[in-house]
Amino acid sequence: MLPYKNLILINTDTTEPLYRQIAVQLIALIQEGKLLPGTLLPSTRTLAFDLQLHRKTITAAYDVLVSEDWVDNLPRKGYVVSSDLPLIKPRSYKKNKISAFAHKGVISFEPLDTILNPVFPLDKSRIMIDDGFPDVSLLPVTTIAKQFKKALDNVTYKAILRHGMWENSNLSVALSTFLKQTRGLDIGVENIFITRGAQMAIYIAASLIIKPGDKVIVSDPSYFIADLVFERLGAELIRVPVDSEGMCTQSIEEILQKNEVKMMYIIPHHHHPTTVTMSVERRQHMLKLIKAYDIAVIEDDYDYDFQFKYDPYLPLASGDHGGKIIYIGSLTKVLGTPFRLGYMVATTDFLDAARKLRRLIDIRGDAIIEEAAAGLINNGDLTRHIQRSNRLYAQRCDMASELISKELTDVVNFTKPTGGMALWLTFNPEFKLYDILKKAHKDGIVLSGTVYCTGKNAHLNSCRFGFASLNEKQLIEVIEVLKKASEK
Amino acid sequence: MLPYKNLILINTDTTEPLYRQIAVQLIALIQEGKLLPGTLLPSTRTLAFDLQLHRKTITAAYDVLVSEDWVDNLPRKGYVVSSDLPLIKPRSYKKNKISAFAHKGVISFEPLDTILNPVFPLDKSRIMIDDGFPDVSLLPVTTIAKQFKKALDNVTYKAILRHGMWENSNLSVALSTFLKQTRGLDIGVENIFITRGAQMAIYIAASLIIKPGDKVIVSDPSYFIADLVFERLGAELIRVPVDSEGMCTQSIEEILQKNEVKMMYIIPHHHHPTTVTMSVERRQHMLKLIKAYDIAVIEDDYDYDFQFKYDPYLPLASGDHGGKIIYIGSLTKVLGTPFRLGYMVATTDFLDAARKLRRLIDIRGDAIIEEAAAGLINNGDLTRHIQRSNRLYAQRCDMASELISKELTDVVNFTKPTGGMALWLTFNPEFKLYDILKKAHKDGIVLSGTVYCTGKNAHLNSCRFGFASLNEKQLIEVIEVLKKASEK
Repeated sequence: MLPYKNLILINTDTTEPLYRQIAVQLIALIQEGKLLPGTLLPSTRTLAFDLQLHRKTITAAYDVLVSEDWVDNLPRKGYVVSSDLPLIKPRSYKKNKISAFAHKGVISFEPLDTILNPVFPLDKSRIMIDDGFPDVSLLPVTTIAKQFKKALDNVTYKAILRHGMWENSNLSVALSTFLKQTRGLDIGVENIFITRGAQMAIYIAASLIIKPGDKVIVSDPSYFIADLVFERLGAELIRVPVDSEGMCTQSIEEILQKNEVKMMYIIPHHHHPTTVTMSVERRQHMLKLIKAYDIAVIEDDYDYDFQFKYDPYLPLASGDHGGKIIYIGSLTKVLGTPFRLGYMVATTDFLDAARKLRRLIDIRGDAIIEEAAAGLINNGDLTRHIQRSNRLYAQRCDMASELISKELTDVVNFTKPTGGMALWLTFNPEFKLYDILKKAHKDGIVLSGTVYCTGKNAHLNSCRFGFASLNEKQLIEVIEVLKKASEK
Repeated sequence: MLPYKNLILINTDTTEPLYRQIAVQLIALIQEGKLLPGTLLPSTRTLAFDLQLHRKTITAAYDVLVSEDWVDNLPRKGYVVSSDLPLIKPRSYKKNKISAFAHKGVISFEPLDTILNPVFPLDKSRIMIDDGFPDVSLLPVTTIAKQFKKALDNVTYKAILRHGMWENSNLSVALSTFLKQTRGLDIGVENIFITRGAQMAIYIAASLIIKPGDKVIVSDPSYFIADLVFERLGAELIRVPVDSEGMCTQSIEEILQKNEVKMMYIIPHHHHPTTVTMSVERRQHMLKLIKAYDIAVIEDDYDYDFQFKYDPYLPLASGDHGGKIIYIGSLTKVLGTPFRLGYMVATTDFLDAARKLRRLIDIRGDAIIEEAAAGLINNGDLTRHIQRSNRLYAQRCDMASELISKELTDVVNFTKPTGGMALWLTFNPEFKLYDILKKAHKDGIVLSGTVYCTGKNAHLNSCRFGFASLNEKQLIEVIEVLKKASEK
């Protein structure tokens, strides 16, 4: 119920009758959209009491509203704002433009438009091919719900405030053990900072490091949302090509010799978007460069946990880098898109600054979700879920690779990855990816992930093909549609 | 298990025996902390297979490790890294400083140090007085858990990606109805953008608006974390005093006449930190100024839902402001600190830009939590929870106010608020708040919220006293301790 007492102001210094004053102000409330069609007005008795007026005055006001079609007097219900309203004035939020201050350059986000929006709309598709996301139907739903309930039951305000001031300390402890065991990182709990997904970790680390004009080395191509973060912070990006062994460290060395570089952003493991894993030789060269030059390094290791063969490489961050590597990972790739949990591993002074910046952005995380995630790690559910998923994703990777090799032989080039959740498909130049996707979209198939087929990226003619979230039937159907769409 | 096959490299071009090469590399792994005390090494058979060597070579290597005390050979268990290790080398992440790049000014967050950390440590207190947070023990835990489970059960990947690309559309719809009904905002679902708490909304809105050097009007005092956001973005803050009627709009008008102001940050309802609600006259003046001048306005309405009397004021955003007001609110204050959900209400073009920036910071929200919150709104649980909480908080406000008036008569000045979750206590100059808090801290009482008693804020000698999360017994105890601590 609206606060009519404050909304309707009675002026006794005027000759305008009271009932008319009330009617006019109620009409204004309707016109402004504060009283919506169908809203029941207060009874004449209630409003009379609130405004300290005689009930007959209110009745007279309501009569005006009824006679002017603003309000209906419904039997056994009362006075209700009409659903058939006379002319409505334009409203503050319903205009399309904040014309009043847009000309000051308030909204200057246009450059991001083309790449942050999907090439074709997602909403009318039968099947969506994503960027390489887990299959949420595999989630141990009951276990997660149980952990959530447990965390919620045991929540005390004090515990939340202490743990949750920035992040949940139980999750930090669980994660630090998990990362030591799986990645050989020589860290204590003090070297872990929990964020919303890896993206927030990238944003915060980059914000602390990059000043306008700083030079930043990235791969070519690179994870485009990271590129956008660095560019928004004013970085000048220096791009280094990626081949079958990963980023060309020889090029990096030449760049470092000639430039004062502030930061380097690398994805040695299942590089995004190309899925290439960096070779041992390049890794050793890279570590040597990091030690020799005065640079900060963000190592983005977004899907380390998904490897189909034994023998993953350890992250560069597990090597000897003098604390220069900020290692970033994600639980979102494990628990699925419903959850956004990531982490940053770095030296304590850097994390102190990161925690402070995070408070300006987001205060703290969701204590219950973080507690539930800690529970999933501690009782082994996370590891079991990863193992189960890996087995299935390996099969889907095999199947997708075989199908594409067979059905799209002359159309697509790709290298089957040793893990992860996506293929990187490069279409031969005579097959324009944009046209193929347009045809596929008509057939109900849409790509929601990284697609390079328009604008300055058109020459790449490539896309990520997330196989992990598609079942056998969907894989067959999707590739059939792509095949049909590639036929001349 | 670590990927030994990649970690141990065998060099056949050297005279160093194979077993020795293996032993040295395993020692290095232990020294680097990659093999932790207690870790079970692979059996000699497994490692021999992995490295394609004879099992005897591995046994010889393990013998070296045992003889040098790096490893214990435990009966019926195997070779285990000793918990009693010889000298450990310094580790990459365990150093205290990222000395390698800190001198480039990478970490420059010192100015925030003093105010972002609590004045006294929180961890050894019996009772914490917070900034004005809800009592999480009132949460309808079963209902929340049920909604969470329901959302998790029904989650499909496609639904998440569609709704969750930026935010959950069910929550946007539920929220827009809720806000129309409670706040008289004339909005559609397209005018709502869901964020992590109000803080992220403030951060994003300010980031889109403020360029270095821009002038921004804030109240004096103001919500200090918002101040820090604006300052970090390079704003020049112009401070306007707050009296018993709220921010002095007369001063604002004078400032606007003389300066090109880019933005104004206001908290008309339960102002933070002072709890003052802006009078009707000031509100009308404010709206006039907003219409007359070319400025963007952030209206922070963090605890509108908590009012102890009928007759709340509607937000300024419900008035005629030509789309200039960006209205920001929070569900965190309703659902409690375990959840971080906030929203921004603005014209669609501004929200488009906001959504893009949010992707750089955080990609998207937690789809399950957002879906659960939508369920809580739609089935009326949220409103019932607010009503129940309000009744209790009103009692606690009464009780806290009476106790403080009685026990701290000459010590503290405050005005009892008409809603919200905190009192704003100003200590008389002869009572140094810092000294009182120091004594109270020894007695197990600590303040975790806004405290102005050190540095450039020492003259304010004031603090927020969150009464909502303290029960009767705690209120009595806390005020007794504060009384004792104020005695000379």
